[in-house]
Parts: sequence; C-alpha cells; structure tokens
Amino acid sequence: MDELDTILAKTFDLDTEVYHRRGFKRRVGYGAKPALLVIDMANGWTQPGSPFACDGMNSVIPAIRELLDVFRDKKLPVVFTSTAYDVTEGPNTDMGLWHLKVPIETMKTGSWEAEIDSRLQPADGEFVLIKKRASAFHGTHLSSMLKAMGVDTVIATGVTASCCVRHSVEDAIAEGFRPIVPRECVGDRVAGVVAWNLFDIDAKFGDVEPLADVLAQIKA
Amino acid sequence: MDELDTILAKTFDLDTEVYHRRGFKRRVGYGAKPALLVIDMANGWTQPGSPFACDGMNSVIPAIRELLDVFRDKKLPVVFTSTAYDVTEGPNTDMGLWHLKVPIETMKTGSWEAEIDSRLQPADGEFVLIKKRASAFHGTHLSSMLKAMGVDTVIATGVTASCCVRHSVEDAIAEGFRPIVPRECVGDRVAGVVAWNLFDIDAKFGDVEPLADVLAQIKA
Amino acid sequence: MDELDTILAKTFDLDTEVYHRRGFKRRVGYGAKPALLVIDMANGWTQPGSPFACDGMNSVIPAIRELLDVFRDKKLPVVFTSTAYDVTEGPNTDMGLWHLKVPIETMKTGSWEAEIDSRLQPADGEFVLIKKRASAFHGTHLSSMLKAMGVDTVIATGVTASCCVRHSVEDAIAEGFRPIVPRECVGDRVAGVVAWNLFDIDAKFGDVEPLADVLAQIKA
Amino acid sequence: MDELDTILAKTFDLDTEVYHRRGFKRRVGYGAKPALLVIDMANGWTQPGSPFACDGMNSVIPAIRELLDVFRDKKLPVVFTSTAYDVTEGPNTDMGLWHLKVPIETMKTGSWEAEIDSRLQPADGEFVLIKKRASAFHGTHLSSMLKAMGVDTVIATGVTASCCVRHSVEDAIAEGFRPIVPRECVGDRVAGVVAWNLFDIDAKFGDVEPLADVLAQIKA
Repeated sequence: MDELDTILAKTFDLDTEVYHRRGFKRRVGYGAKPALLVIDMANGWTQPGSPFACDGMNSVIPAIRELLDVFRDKKLPVVFTSTAYDVTEGPNTDMGLWHLKVPIETMKTGSWEAEIDSRLQPADGEFVLIKKRASAFHGTHLSSMLKAMGVDTVIATGVTASCCVRHSVEDAIAEGFRPIVPRECVGDRVAGVVAWNLFDIDAKFGDVEPLADVLAQIKA
Repeated sequence: MDELDTILAKTFDLDTEVYHRRGFKRRVGYGAKPALLVIDMANGWTQPGSPFACDGMNSVIPAIRELLDVFRDKKLPVVFTSTAYDVTEGPNTDMGLWHLKVPIETMKTGSWEAEIDSRLQPADGEFVLIKKRASAFHGTHLSSMLKAMGVDTVIATGVTASCCVRHSVEDAIAEGFRPIVPRECVGDRVAGVVAWNLFDIDAKFGDVEPLADVLAQIKA
Repeated sequence: MDELDTILAKTFDLDTEVYHRRGFKRRVGYGAKPALLVIDMANGWTQPGSPFACDGMNSVIPAIRELLDVFRDKKLPVVFTSTAYDVTEGPNTDMGLWHLKVPIETMKTGSWEAEIDSRLQPADGEFVLIKKRASAFHGTHLSSMLKAMGVDTVIATGVTASCCVRHSVEDAIAEGFRPIVPRECVGDRVAGVVAWNLFDIDAKFGDVEPLADVLAQIKA
Repeated sequence: MDELDTILAKTFDLDTEVYHRRGFKRRVGYGAKPALLVIDMANGWTQPGSPFACDGMNSVIPAIRELLDVFRDKKLPVVFTSTAYDVTEGPNTDMGLWHLKVPIETMKTGSWEAEIDSRLQPADGEFVLIKKRASAFHGTHLSSMLKAMGVDTVIATGVTASCCVRHSVEDAIAEGFRPIVPRECVGDRVAGVVAWNLFDIDAKFGDVEPLADVLAQIKA
C-alpha cells in the first residue's frame, strides 16, 4: 500500500499545518514518574489464529521489550492488560454490549489467547489487569492504582492503535496523566489504521514519539 | 449491648421524625428488573480467623440463600463480589492506598480467604467480580454490565454494613440503580454498626426492607 | 482532496473485507429507548473565529435539526454538551492536563463561544452538560442520568469526529449503551479525519448509518 | 442527648478495641500536596429554611475559615462543591434517581440555596464544582483535576457527615488520595449522626483529626 502511505503522509502534512496554526498538537511532555502500560499483548492478539491477531508483532514485541528492560532496570511501575470474559453465553454476560460489535466472545478468561505473550512475560510484582472494555482505564482500578503510586506519566504501548491503545490514551489524559506513545510499540490489523490513529492521538491526546527518544527520556 | 440497642432505637425514632418532616427517607421502590448483589461473602469475611471475620453469619448466610433461590428460579442476574490483591508488597501494589487504613494485605488473589463461601457457591453463569476497593461499583465494570443486562434495581446483600455494602449502595443510586437492602442479609463486626449504617442508608440512599417483603416482591 | 477520498474509499473496502472475515463491524442496533446527544455544537465550534471552528456546519446543523425535531416530537430525551472552563490561568485549573495538547484555554465558562449555537437552541427541559474532557461521559453524570431515564441507545451527533464524538461513542458502548452515529450529523476540521474516524467507529464501537435510516428508525 | 453521647462514646471504645486488635484504624497520613475540599457549604445547607439546613453551622463555618486562611496563605488548592439541578420536573431530569430518596428537587441551579455561603466566599481561581450526586468525586472531574494539580491528600470538610462528606471520603481513598477529616469542620442535621459517621470514616476510609492538628500539619 505504498500509494496509501504516500497520500496519508501528504494529508498529515496539510492537516498538521492547520493544527499548528490553530494551536493544537502541543507537547504534553514528561512528568516526574512514568509507568509503562503494555496493552493486550496476549496471544490472541500477538499470535496467528484468533480474530484479534495483529500485524507487525515481530517488530512491536522487541520494541516493547526495550522499554520493559529500562523500566525494570529503573524499578519503575509496569502494568500489563489483557481482555477476557468469564460468561460468554446467555444474557448475564460480563461482555456488556461490546460483543454486538466485535468478536470478544472468543476471548475466554484463563485461555491461552488471554495470556500475555511469553516473549513479554510479566515479572513478579508486575500487575496484569484483566479488563472488559477497550480502555485500560474504563471500569478498572488502573487510574487509582497509578495515582497511589505517584505516577503522572503513562507510556502506552501494545495493540490495537484504533481501539484499546487509542481509548486508553484518551482516558489517560482525561484522568490527568501525561500520555506518551512510542511509535514503534503500537500495532493493529488493517491498512492505514496505525498511521491515522497515531496522527489523531498526537494532535489531541498524547505525544507520539520515536522509541529512541522515549528510551532516552526514561533513562535520564 | 441491650442498652445500646435501646438508645439507638430511641435515637432513630427522633431522627426519623426530623427526616420525615424534611422529606427524606422516601421509598425508591422496585423497577422492572432486579439483580442480586452478594458482596464479599468470601471465607475471609464469613469464617473465623481473618481480621475481616464478621459476626452473625449463621443468620446472614441462610437469609441470602433464600434470595439466591428465588433469583435462580426466576433466572434473574446474580453477581458475587470478593476483594483480593495480586501484589501486596512493594510500591507497585494493586491495593492503592487502602492498606494504609485497613489490613487488606491479608486478602490475596487465589487464596481460600478470597473464595466465595461454599454455602453460597456461585452457579455457572453467575459472575464473581474481584474488586479492589470498598464499593462493588468503584473501578469496576459492574455498572456497565448491569446496564447492558437491562437491570434497574439492585438488591444489595453481604458484608460489611459500614464499608462495602454501604459504599456500594451509595454508588448504586448515584449510578441510576434503585438500591434495596434486605435487613437480615447484611452483617458487620462491631457493636451498633449494622443498625446505624442501615439507618443512614434507608434515610438517604436505598430502601432497607424486611427480607420477607423483598422475597415477596421478587417472586411477584 | 478527491485523490484522498478515492484512496480512502479503496482502503476502507480492503479493511472492511478483513473486518468482515474476522467477525468485526457487527450491528449493535437499536434498543427500546434512544436519547439524542448533541456534542459541542456551541459557537466556538460552529462559527468562524475560534481555534475550534469546524468545517461543514452548513450541512451538519440542518441534519441535527431534523433529528431534534423528531426527538422533540416523540418527547424523547435530548442532551447537549459544551466544553468550558472556569479557571484557565494558574496551577489550580479545571482544564486538567488537556491544555497541554489543545487550546482549550480559549473556551471560557459563560462565553459566547461556549454557548450552544442558536440554530440548535436547547428547549426547556433539555439538559446542557458542561464537560471538561473530550468524552461526554468521562467525569460527568451523563451515564447515570441516561440510565435513570431508562435510555439504552445513544444517537451521537456533533463535533468533532476525531475527538469528542469518537471518545463519547467509545465510552457509550463501554457504559452499556448502543451508540448510533448518523453520518451527516458529524463534523471536524481537517481533511480525511471525519471519514477515518467514522470508519473506525463503525468497525468497533457503534453503528454509523445514513441520517435517513436513523430518522426512520426513531419515527418507527 | 447526653445519654446518647455517653453510650456512643462507650460503644466506640469497645469497637475501637476490636478494630485495633484486627489491624483497622491505621493512619493514612499526609502526602506531599493537600487540597482543601469544602463540601456543600451553600445556603441551602448552612442557613435555616431549606429541608437540607444543618445544625452547628456557627462552629463549623469558623472552623473551615481557619483552614481556608491557611490554604490561601500557602497558595494550596481549594475546591468548593454545591449540589444543584437544572431540570427538576419531568422524566428527563439531571437528578437521576436521587430525588426518589431525598428532597433534592428543592435545590435549583442558580438559586440562593445552591450558592456558597458568603461567610466562606470562594476567592478568584477557586473552583466551585456543581455536583449531582452525594460524592464530590462521583460523576465529576474532581479526581482528574486534583491529579493534574499533583494533589495526593484531600482535607475534607463541610456537610453532611452521613452523606456527601462520607461518600466523598470513601471515594477519595478509592481514587488514591489520602483523606483527612478535621473533626470540627463537619456537620449534619440529626442526633448522633456526625459522631457515628466520623467513627466509621476513621476506622476504614480516612483520618479524623482535631482541627488544631490539621492546621499545624498544613502550616508545616
């Protein structure tokens, strides 16, 4: 899809000009204490076979590992999420209404699909949040947990750009956290969708930055 | 503590007079579809030994079972909660700040203490919500799950009156659900505290009613 | 930007094929009681001059009016939102962190910019919600207010597609409401952004439908 | 009601013994940055005439003023709340379900009753939050606003002990803030209710401390 990439790049340039003239696309920047959020890097998203399987995992996973190494080295907080359901049949389900749009009935609590990919194995003391909705913050204790830790900045990584990552980033700034998205650490499953969603995020909700810059900031 | 009961009864009569004169203590009543909420009836609260062990379980458990039977018979939604933590040491805990007030570090995810008491064994398709805070609604997907089910009324039972039951009832009406508390289905662990909290709940947040009346309403 | 429209249409076709094969892009459909949500159709967005001024208002406003007429005729609930701030200077602001990304310091409480455009004048008994974040649900009582009204479906209209409308729709389904977006009733301010965001919404969060179909459904 | 006070004191001593043995009633303590929360000190609560009128305002108001002076002197954040409704008739009200329990239909947006008592006049730059539910946090942007300010401790004052103050304190610790309640700064309207609710708060949700101690801590 070279043609798509070219026209998207041209569009983003034009749109950026409008945003800059209007005072959008400011830098939210780093606060005093970041947490690393690794969103839905579970087998159902990172491995072939599930309806949720994503593209580009061979580059996204090593990119997230670089961040993980730095966060662990600095003893900074790391939170993983997965999305899984206990009751996927009948009217009394924990899926809410979301299965009316997307095939979340395939993500069962305790399944291999819901388990974090072993290439990103959570360490002892790293919390794995099982969420029910797209956002890692919506209907969860994530915000209060990070607040209690004194966290003010959220480095958001994982999948997918157009769904769980984007909704989480929108909620992060709404909750009073500075969201930073390292470009190489985010994936999705259809053409154009990562580029567009990162563009929107950078314009309005959080800073999309090269991984190298984020690594340098966290190390500093 | 007969003396306490006597003076509390007298106080509630006087206070009720003020509330009635002022237009408080109205009946919120029943909507079209109730859910049964069984709060923290896990071994740590229902059995001796834990710091959270409650009094009166020999009457509270059978009372809740009567409701469970009717809800199951009518195929109405039932949700259980327990409170448990994955990371109870170090700075990156899911306890938030609550362990700075109460000994929640003793309630570990996957422990016998966090498991629902077998006398109230959840059936297939009945969701067990592991919450992190007092309220069953705070930082959970309970509200959206009940809304998606079409529930408009919450029958709140369990422990404790002064903590998880009360905060859940306050949140229930704030979220737009009609809270009903069957008096016999609620317990706690110190003198006077059930009576006082049910009095406050009935004045301002939900209807405290005899179990027999609630059973009759749900059956009807 | 005909070239952009053409390539976007081609991309959405390809992406839709993937989504359909995977079981995404299902129809959430209509429940029993809809509410109309008119998002940020205040002068700062609908009229020239402010950094937030949007394109296409000459078609979006009449489209929303058609819906307003039907909702008022049927006596169904209508909620307007605007975004405005009381304290836009100093450290103790109600803007949270959002002014670090977008120029919200220009939207003052009580200003002409924050007032609903007179072409969409709220009627008596129609609530105007002053929100502080992108989503109409985040940090507001909207969800509980709609729940108390028995609403189960939200017809989302207004501006902007990539920000307040999208975040509101994501939150609506997360909260247990069925979101429907009438395509003609949504605007934004840069090229391509309405099309892409409606595509993402329709794939994962709510149904994007022609206004004529939505009008027919509400009338029925 | 000397008899009530005596028996309550005796009960609290007995209950405290149980709580201490069990590891409850810990001190949450002060963090690095406190905010002062002045809850519902509006004319409807502080002056005679409304159903919400409270007792003891002649001592509560000067006590809160002492705190206000220190917070202003130190340029620390102060947030006032009031509770008021735009639509108090018909089905589409912003009251949610709460008017089914308490007479909140008497508290109209823009009325004298909803205005902060002039003895506690908010200063420029002090935010007045108009809330719809009991808790200052529920369905509001308070948590995210305080988080964005770097606040980690909430000094909760105002009315009433059994309703808005208690629910706010429960939510404050659930959200990851340290709640401190200066005993002299809280009021209510029926016998026994301040004492009991402060006792429950101190056992489980926040530290109830003498005003002199809180003043000394904030000054330090």
